[in-house]
Amino acid sequence: MNKVIKELAKTENISSEELKNKVASGMAVIPLNNARKDIIKKPVAIGEGLTVKVNANIGASPDISSVAGELEKLQVSVQAGADTVMDLTIGEEWEKILSSILKDSPVPVGTVPVYGAICSSKNIYKLNEDDFIRTVEQQALMGVDFMTIHAGVTRAVAEVYDKSDRVGGIVSRGGKLIYRWMKKTGKENPFYNRFDEILEIAARHSVTISLGDGLRPGSIADASDEPQYAELRVLGELTDRCRRAGVMVMIEGPGHVPINKIKENIEKEKEICSGAPFYVLGPLTTDIAAGYDHITAAIGGALAGYFGADFLCYVTPSEHLHLPGLEDVKQGVIASKIAAHSASIARGIGGDKDKRMSQARKNLDWAEMEKYALDGDKIKEARKKFPSMKDGVCTMCGPYCALLED
Amino acid sequence: MNKVIKELAKTENISSEELKNKVASGMAVIPLNNARKDIIKKPVAIGEGLTVKVNANIGASPDISSVAGELEKLQVSVQAGADTVMDLTIGEEWEKILSSILKDSPVPVGTVPVYGAICSSKNIYKLNEDDFIRTVEQQALMGVDFMTIHAGVTRAVAEVYDKSDRVGGIVSRGGKLIYRWMKKTGKENPFYNRFDEILEIAARHSVTISLGDGLRPGSIADASDEPQYAELRVLGELTDRCRRAGVMVMIEGPGHVPINKIKENIEKEKEICSGAPFYVLGPLTTDIAAGYDHITAAIGGALAGYFGADFLCYVTPSEHLHLPGLEDVKQGVIASKIAAHSASIARGIGGDKDKRMSQARKNLDWAEMEKYALDGDKIKEARKKFPSMKDGVCTMCGPYCALLED
Repeated sequence: MNKVIKELAKTENISSEELKNKVASGMAVIPLNNARKDIIKKPVAIGEGLTVKVNANIGASPDISSVAGELEKLQVSVQAGADTVMDLTIGEEWEKILSSILKDSPVPVGTVPVYGAICSSKNIYKLNEDDFIRTVEQQALMGVDFMTIHAGVTRAVAEVYDKSDRVGGIVSRGGKLIYRWMKKTGKENPFYNRFDEILEIAARHSVTISLGDGLRPGSIADASDEPQYAELRVLGELTDRCRRAGVMVMIEGPGHVPINKIKENIEKEKEICSGAPFYVLGPLTTDIAAGYDHITAAIGGALAGYFGADFLCYVTPSEHLHLPGLEDVKQGVIASKIAAHSASIARGIGGDKDKRMSQARKNLDWAEMEKYALDGDKIKEARKKFPSMKDGVCTMCGPYCALLED
Repeated sequence: MNKVIKELAKTENISSEELKNKVASGMAVIPLNNARKDIIKKPVAIGEGLTVKVNANIGASPDISSVAGELEKLQVSVQAGADTVMDLTIGEEWEKILSSILKDSPVPVGTVPVYGAICSSKNIYKLNEDDFIRTVEQQALMGVDFMTIHAGVTRAVAEVYDKSDRVGGIVSRGGKLIYRWMKKTGKENPFYNRFDEILEIAARHSVTISLGDGLRPGSIADASDEPQYAELRVLGELTDRCRRAGVMVMIEGPGHVPINKIKENIEKEKEICSGAPFYVLGPLTTDIAAGYDHITAAIGGALAGYFGADFLCYVTPSEHLHLPGLEDVKQGVIASKIAAHSASIARGIGGDKDKRMSQARKNLDWAEMEKYALDGDKIKEARKKFPSMKDGVCTMCGPYCALLED
């Protein structure tokens, strides 16, 4: 771990001591399963004062499933700059896909164990508490670096939800599965009930826990509502238990949040969860942009990152419509990288790429621009495809380019 | 005008009296040339307390030029939801293209007269003051609804620029043309020098003046620098002169601005220009996203709109690379609409489309979702192209969809 810390501190432009302290105090996490120490080529630190990071959700569904397809998504994600991936496969092939991804992925890999549990049984109501915990252990052994644990949707929190007038209902796949299981069996959330066992497993294998938000708002009308914050308060308690057990922990957050409520959402999380790294999905700043929700999420993610969120889960253009394909994955990662980078530099921690890019642009030095651009190939392609009659400029203004010297 | 005000007030969900007062006090503008009264089918009001609006820049360049092509861009822009278009054609065909657009466009049309002036002469240094003013008059007669007048780059402001250590230089095409002309001829900016004549023309034809920001930052390193604000102060004085002359006026703004400086930029404009509507280009929150700058601009535009900008100029994925094509135009308008709508609803003035969309989503009512989505066709296409084995849901989760009732 010391070598990793040294390496990461250098990337983040802080001292090893500083990074060590951040991790020790729970302000930062480094998801890295013992079993994958030698496989992870690009470890990552996530947390306060570090550059904002990006996760890409990949994984198959019952409708579209193939190991090769998911490995391609992994490759595209990493190439586009994702700092981590989550394999959210739900379906019969989940073990095959997950083990392939864990074998190949140079970046930390996350999962949502409740998906594995349900897929192994086909009928969620036949699962007992042990089955859920067993999946956590199985995935920890397989080498998963971080896991979404939906321990916050307790029976008491579910009751708050039942009494609420939510517009969008429960949109978290994992949250809804637990909710249904509790309702049908009359039992407490197994991830909550057996949280100590989960902590033991996580500590043993060095798995970072990502406390899931099963009641995250799926409509901006529901942002900051009582069910959301009731769950967050439980996550606050669980954060303390993780830290006492020496387990790295981060917190998952919304979802759909209008611009005017983003700051408040970040501040509440940081306060209630004692500064634990905040991992947000989007947030989406409007509900009406299906087909373009990578853009909606970039708006919300940039703002969330600026206000202190540490880790952005990408959203692809296919969100709300279909399982993302390869191109969706690429577009999602890039949009999220733009958001993360915009947030980082606004917090003064992004380096000087922007300045170098601007200098290259002023000099009309296209080769240099390729170097600093998020996607240099785009520039190369454009130069080939749209040549101007005038050397050195582009077809936007041709000889009237403002950057030409007289 | 009374009929238009009544109609617009209804769209904005305010009283006609309120809208009339906003326009009278200069807090809002309604770009509408006398000559196009009967052609504009979708007039628009831009300003304080109104929904945030979107402009699409179209127009040809010396490299790529055709009347038909620009008319197609006009159609795509309007279809995607642009509230106005600007014809920024630079090149020999400018008069032909502009008159075609003015004949066809159901939305207000803007121009940058200095482009027309330079294209009519081929050599900017041969132009005299009269030539610039003549182009303003010519375009007002043709029916242009709003014009970018680069009157703020005065000789004194240019000196401030010369002494500065700008990274990105001057990136405004119009600003740079004026700057060069002043340097070469030793004369004052003709738009500044003859501003009273411009006001007479604008008043006579009912042209809204959009005071251009020739020294807008083209690198986030230059945001809020002295040249930018020196020019803004001149625009503040000119705003007063417009109002005294009974000419509607709005102010153009940056450009490239990091997230942490957006609020300040909006507040300064509103203060220095006495609440005049603010029309921003982007702003782009990072310099390194060439190929994806519609996303970068959506982040900055949403935030700018939330903090009080009234009018967003779209940026397309081809910004910094080549003249936008049809698909670029569509993507640019949609990204900008997402930003504008996200800003409007965060200010409480967007209507209840989001709620209706969320309700439809909860009910898995895809036909209803099509109605409220920014781009309903995207949903229709996805439903056809990616059918799930399970009815009613999508391929993301299939039978595990969180929204299915038990």
